[in-house]
Amino acid sequence: MRVFGIDCGTEITGWGVVETRDSAREARLVCMAMGAIRLVKTKTTAQRLEQVFLELTAQIEVWKPDTVAIEEVFYSVNAKSALKLGQVRGVALLAAATQVRPVAEYAPLKIKSSVVGYGLAKKEQVQFMVARLLGLDAVPEPADAADALAIAICHIHTAQTLLAQEAR
Amino acid sequence: MRVFGIDCGTEITGWGVVETRDSAREARLVCMAMGAIRLVKTKTTAQRLEQVFLELTAQIEVWKPDTVAIEEVFYSVNAKSALKLGQVRGVALLAAATQVRPVAEYAPLKIKSSVVGYGLAKKEQVQFMVARLLGLDAVPEPADAADALAIAICHIHTAQTLLAQEAR
Repeated sequence: MRVFGIDCGTEITGWGVVETRDSAREARLVCMAMGAIRLVKTKTTAQRLEQVFLELTAQIEVWKPDTVAIEEVFYSVNAKSALKLGQVRGVALLAAATQVRPVAEYAPLKIKSSVVGYGLAKKEQVQFMVARLLGLDAVPEPADAADALAIAICHIHTAQTLLAQEAR
Repeated sequence: MRVFGIDCGTEITGWGVVETRDSAREARLVCMAMGAIRLVKTKTTAQRLEQVFLELTAQIEVWKPDTVAIEEVFYSVNAKSALKLGQVRGVALLAAATQVRPVAEYAPLKIKSSVVGYGLAKKEQVQFMVARLLGLDAVPEPADAADALAIAICHIHTAQTLLAQEAR
């Protein structure tokens, strides 16, 4: 299974690709790629959204994931921030749709629980556990890329749990 | 001058094309086309956003406007609605960007003032004045298409005012 995680942000949007590899002894998670799209502040909103869309589309085209996993949004932010974040999220969802990839959405609490085992975990704990679960030598940078990998891991864990339940 | 107005909505997104025609006696406004994109509720969010994007892109490609005019958003809505509206707005802005069309944004008050002469005008007044300004026999339907035409008219009025000021 290969999952493309996206962590949408109004300044930086992180992405990361995680794959499962089954050996005789265990199922391993492997980080195939990750990155962060930093928006150029001098550009217009429309141009910035185009930058996010084109970069995500290109990466989804390269990695051909089985699923695109994205964070459900935090409704406690104010309406102005929600609108701006919604714009980025809209083009991210569109990038998945134009590449005909199914989309899975996970709440922030669920993502942290899945990676750290604790829904209120701090950013640093998430980064640390992402590095550990993927066998990386260093913590993924920027944090946005680590968050995107965490979303992908959350989807894999959720899918594996469902499969295990069905197998019972 | 040809302007493509977009009225984003989470259920229906209206669009309309308005052109200026100068005769010896006066400058006329002509409605070239209008329509509304009704989102299919059984589809996923990503598929619905793709529907909006593809339809707007196709229309912008056909009409090749000088400018795409869009409503600035109402921040008084709640964060959840703002996020959903933001997603639609994101793909609408992207459609303008991918067709290399400049984007102009106008606040709701400004749009109503420009069309009706009164910022707190009701929806029916806007529809009535849009029909009158464009010389239409009937009020444009649905209201979302009328709103999109109003946004386009607002841009034309604003651009004409700026030109007049520069000419002084």
